[in-house]
Amino acid sequence: MIRVAILGATGYTAAELINILLRHPEVEIRVLTTRREERPHVREIHPRFTDRLDLRLENLPAEEVAPQCDCVFSCLPHRASALVAADYLRAGKRVVDFSADYRLLDVATFEKWYAVEHPDPARVGHTPYGLPELFADEIRAAQLVANPGCFPTLAILSLAPLLQNGLIEANDIIIDAKTGVSGAGRTPKPPFHFPECNESTMAYGVGQHRHTPEIDQLLGKAGGQKVSVVFTPHLTPMTRGMLATIYVRPSGSTTAETAMQTLREFYADKPFVRIVDHLPSTRYVSHTNFCDITVRQSGNRLVLLACIDNLIKGASGAAVQNFNLMHGFEETLALL
Amino acid sequence: MIRVAILGATGYTAAELINILLRHPEVEIRVLTTRREERPHVREIHPRFTDRLDLRLENLPAEEVAPQCDCVFSCLPHRASALVAADYLRAGKRVVDFSADYRLLDVATFEKWYAVEHPDPARVGHTPYGLPELFADEIRAAQLVANPGCFPTLAILSLAPLLQNGLIEANDIIIDAKTGVSGAGRTPKPPFHFPECNESTMAYGVGQHRHTPEIDQLLGKAGGQKVSVVFTPHLTPMTRGMLATIYVRPSGSTTAETAMQTLREFYADKPFVRIVDHLPSTRYVSHTNFCDITVRQSGNRLVLLACIDNLIKGASGAAVQNFNLMHGFEETLALL
Amino acid sequence: MIRVAILGATGYTAAELINILLRHPEVEIRVLTTRREERPHVREIHPRFTDRLDLRLENLPAEEVAPQCDCVFSCLPHRASALVAADYLRAGKRVVDFSADYRLLDVATFEKWYAVEHPDPARVGHTPYGLPELFADEIRAAQLVANPGCFPTLAILSLAPLLQNGLIEANDIIIDAKTGVSGAGRTPKPPFHFPECNESTMAYGVGQHRHTPEIDQLLGKAGGQKVSVVFTPHLTPMTRGMLATIYVRPSGSTTAETAMQTLREFYADKPFVRIVDHLPSTRYVSHTNFCDITVRQSGNRLVLLACIDNLIKGASGAAVQNFNLMHGFEETLALL
Amino acid sequence: MIRVAILGATGYTAAELINILLRHPEVEIRVLTTRREERPHVREIHPRFTDRLDLRLENLPAEEVAPQCDCVFSCLPHRASALVAADYLRAGKRVVDFSADYRLLDVATFEKWYAVEHPDPARVGHTPYGLPELFADEIRAAQLVANPGCFPTLAILSLAPLLQNGLIEANDIIIDAKTGVSGAGRTPKPPFHFPECNESTMAYGVGQHRHTPEIDQLLGKAGGQKVSVVFTPHLTPMTRGMLATIYVRPSGSTTAETAMQTLREFYADKPFVRIVDHLPSTRYVSHTNFCDITVRQSGNRLVLLACIDNLIKGASGAAVQNFNLMHGFEETLALL
Repeated sequence: MIRVAILGATGYTAAELINILLRHPEVEIRVLTTRREERPHVREIHPRFTDRLDLRLENLPAEEVAPQCDCVFSCLPHRASALVAADYLRAGKRVVDFSADYRLLDVATFEKWYAVEHPDPARVGHTPYGLPELFADEIRAAQLVANPGCFPTLAILSLAPLLQNGLIEANDIIIDAKTGVSGAGRTPKPPFHFPECNESTMAYGVGQHRHTPEIDQLLGKAGGQKVSVVFTPHLTPMTRGMLATIYVRPSGSTTAETAMQTLREFYADKPFVRIVDHLPSTRYVSHTNFCDITVRQSGNRLVLLACIDNLIKGASGAAVQNFNLMHGFEETLALL
Repeated sequence: MIRVAILGATGYTAAELINILLRHPEVEIRVLTTRREERPHVREIHPRFTDRLDLRLENLPAEEVAPQCDCVFSCLPHRASALVAADYLRAGKRVVDFSADYRLLDVATFEKWYAVEHPDPARVGHTPYGLPELFADEIRAAQLVANPGCFPTLAILSLAPLLQNGLIEANDIIIDAKTGVSGAGRTPKPPFHFPECNESTMAYGVGQHRHTPEIDQLLGKAGGQKVSVVFTPHLTPMTRGMLATIYVRPSGSTTAETAMQTLREFYADKPFVRIVDHLPSTRYVSHTNFCDITVRQSGNRLVLLACIDNLIKGASGAAVQNFNLMHGFEETLALL
Repeated sequence: MIRVAILGATGYTAAELINILLRHPEVEIRVLTTRREERPHVREIHPRFTDRLDLRLENLPAEEVAPQCDCVFSCLPHRASALVAADYLRAGKRVVDFSADYRLLDVATFEKWYAVEHPDPARVGHTPYGLPELFADEIRAAQLVANPGCFPTLAILSLAPLLQNGLIEANDIIIDAKTGVSGAGRTPKPPFHFPECNESTMAYGVGQHRHTPEIDQLLGKAGGQKVSVVFTPHLTPMTRGMLATIYVRPSGSTTAETAMQTLREFYADKPFVRIVDHLPSTRYVSHTNFCDITVRQSGNRLVLLACIDNLIKGASGAAVQNFNLMHGFEETLALL
Repeated sequence: MIRVAILGATGYTAAELINILLRHPEVEIRVLTTRREERPHVREIHPRFTDRLDLRLENLPAEEVAPQCDCVFSCLPHRASALVAADYLRAGKRVVDFSADYRLLDVATFEKWYAVEHPDPARVGHTPYGLPELFADEIRAAQLVANPGCFPTLAILSLAPLLQNGLIEANDIIIDAKTGVSGAGRTPKPPFHFPECNESTMAYGVGQHRHTPEIDQLLGKAGGQKVSVVFTPHLTPMTRGMLATIYVRPSGSTTAETAMQTLREFYADKPFVRIVDHLPSTRYVSHTNFCDITVRQSGNRLVLLACIDNLIKGASGAAVQNFNLMHGFEETLALL
């Protein structure tokens, strides 16, 4: 039985993580932390867990949390996460970090896009990126894993096999992504107030979204060449779900069929990526850890269409998938 | 041309009011106020009015606003509204007040339910309640009108004619109401964060909603007897719209048909109340100033079903209807 | 391993059932039937099950299905279900019937409300009503169980303990229910077309809904006295979820607190009913088999507020709960 | 007073048209037609018009409709529209056609994409395309106008000025569009059933949508060169609204700023196109005839973002705008 602590347990990714872990036969949730001081019971923060988990959220330092757990899931914001991760690692605990702190390959890019000093620069570039479909071996051996961003998960799963096989042009990739509102977190802000996003679709962060360098660096690493995507996220009126429509230019004789075939082979033994014939809908993967991908031809482009549940394969499901690999469990445990 | 000022112009009711007044042939919007200091342009606060209204929202005192206008619409919160209304009235301006400050019939009830001292108690109980279908004569003659609450509008329009005619028992009225989220205003708060209200229906303020005494007092006044309703509002995942399902006990031989007939006669020359044969949907009155009402029999009860758009007949449309009466215009001007 | 067949596997309740059973360690789904002739693969009908279940939906008679299974879940419409149930029972199979065919206590009431002749009248009134919180012993011993309607589940779980204990008046019960659209099934019809139900709340079937006699008979059976409720369902713009707001008249000195206490004791060892302090939201029980109930005082009434996921505790979760009891498994298997 | 007939008055575009025309001071709606035989009252088909329009929908031939009207709005499907348009034109009536029948520039393209024989080929290529921002002079002089498709409206308004001025490459245009469900019409079909599109975003018709040749031909005509766009529409869970995210390659030194400047000049005296600084949301133009456009830089691309209400500027508002020009009225009449 692995004893688990969840840091920053008030938000949506933490709730989804608790929901998955309550089904995990090898996990015992022992500690939930928060920066709030009033020690709320988990049922006050997440009423769905009434009678299911009898814990309070507490504002505890690492030295009090560490002795009670074997593994830590950090749902803290960027920088706050790296500020404490080192303590847990030093205490010999495994850490799955949901923040962006260890995803990028160099400190300079992190500090440019996140506009803060990195508190633990030594581990940047040396931490496995938690996409098991690409980096399972590093993840299995790791004490710390950087759980991927939701948009990068979609982009990298769709594009990496095609880039690796030289089937598409690396310098002409356009990613038009649509996300549900839960991706923005649980803190109430004007753009996410119900009457503001209901009956509304709009782009945001055009040309400036922080997932852009993550996509570029990891695609570059996967494909072995510099990549610089055009990435536009959009907010759509749904709670969960994320769809990427990706426009690429085929190299040589690549067709939708050959691209599909390459993807099918690449993911043949990967339980959570499905290369599908139908046009993916966010609803078909909602509340699951699956990523559905298809390819179509449109004019002189290939169009890749890929969906995930942003809270599961885009966050908490991926985290448990990493956790399973790190602990030698079946990759799919608690995730089907 | 009536020069108009709108106090507290950042919210949804103010936006809806601007939208209606931009169609009003006898109105010129001259001043928009806010408590924010940065003088935002109206298009920054309400992008829908880009190129339609060239005004800034300013933090101005009554003595600067009053000379620029003939009539004031106050979208300020309760108490804040009464704190300035007197200034405008003293300056000879007409005032339509969206707040609850002048709706109730006595100061004690106001202070009990709103838990603040009333800053202008002398006008409480002497201000016409702005429901033109019941109080058109007082409204026509008034300098100050108390624009009704949204739930009370639905409840009173449905019940007053039946109580006046003794068709139902006054002491056994249950009002189960469902509202869209815009009724909660524009300030982001946890319960109105998109992922919290989407795919969610729940009751709130059970037995404690501030519209309860407003309904009781006005129904009592309309019906000539003490009324004490059981009122339960619910939040449903839509932006606009409000439905009341009202359970009453018929007196004597009242049937759904006789109740419908009484309502039809009562509202025969009222342009905005429609007694309909179909079951009302909030969608059928959305973006209109109509209130649709029907009656059905169910067991030993009559069930009244009534719908409005909470932002229009429940707020800004009613305000313009009152404005029209106060200024001798056609009641329907800018509202069809 | 129990081999299972699902009859009428194209709809939403069947999809939810498959989703639950794929997690059930003691179940193997062997047959899916449909009246459609083209033998579609389950992934064509329910794309979410791509790569998860490799079966075709086939138009098969009972004599071909029965030898392949130990237990049948019938998601067929009323009458169609009873037309085949007898065949499976005769072949010694267990049957969980989602239709209304065996829920009512007498044939006359069924034929009046469903306007068809009952094809298997002998079993009506002798089939356990599949609400394990009330009838677990009968269910455990049964070969055929009548899975409850969604609205009756909410109403009976909320009211039966209070009626049994004489805490409320049996002759003055008003049930105002709000449901998501999935309850209407998967066949496209005008009222359920997206633009018709989005941004819309409306009542339907006022005084005429077929769940009314089911509520009346089962409450009467549970409470030991004749009950005749006033029941009004409403359609709200969400996919899943069902909330009942129930207005009752307390007997003698019953308060919200004593009613809560009675409910807590009644459901103390029932894993899927939670008596909660907060106001229930459909979202808190969404994608779960829980029913959350609370009680409030409002004027001279008690207001019970109760929520379920209409597709789970209101249909397929309840069916698996019954299946578990019928087969001697832990009641919660595959349901947490 | 212009007497108007609306052909095919049961759908959403007809309802929106009626709503606009009820505000039009120079219009009298005289005839509503349908292919249904039961002569329903308009309030049975569109309950929102209860007490507002006292007409029945009738299955009438052109020879009965024509004498009662001066102008015909045809909301009939493609081919059905062209089958009757000639009759009205011969009778000297003006016709605004919502269908695709007269939009394309040649019969062969129409017959290829719509897979039917064109019943009135002589007028194809000689009918003004009803986009007043580009073709006002032809529209003013026309007896028949082809009202544009919704996606083409967005695409052409955004791109035509940039192509005309040589600011972007004509051979590398990607249009990623998101639409609300009302664009699919009012006939219930599985993909538009509420539980299928709620909480769902998906692409459809990838590389095959019938608006593609309309966009290509009209952009080609506006820009004076062959254009072949990559166009992907998506269905999002909202009733109204349409957003296009358009990726173009700048020519020479074009920047987002110079593109914005060109658009501002092009639309300086066009009342319904707003070149905005903010990122457009469908909500900001909902229930209006406006098209909001902005431009951003992203990597080596320009990203154009443009929004309309698909039922208004994308259909019925545009039709009234054309009607106003054809009859010499102010272009904005009934549209602000």
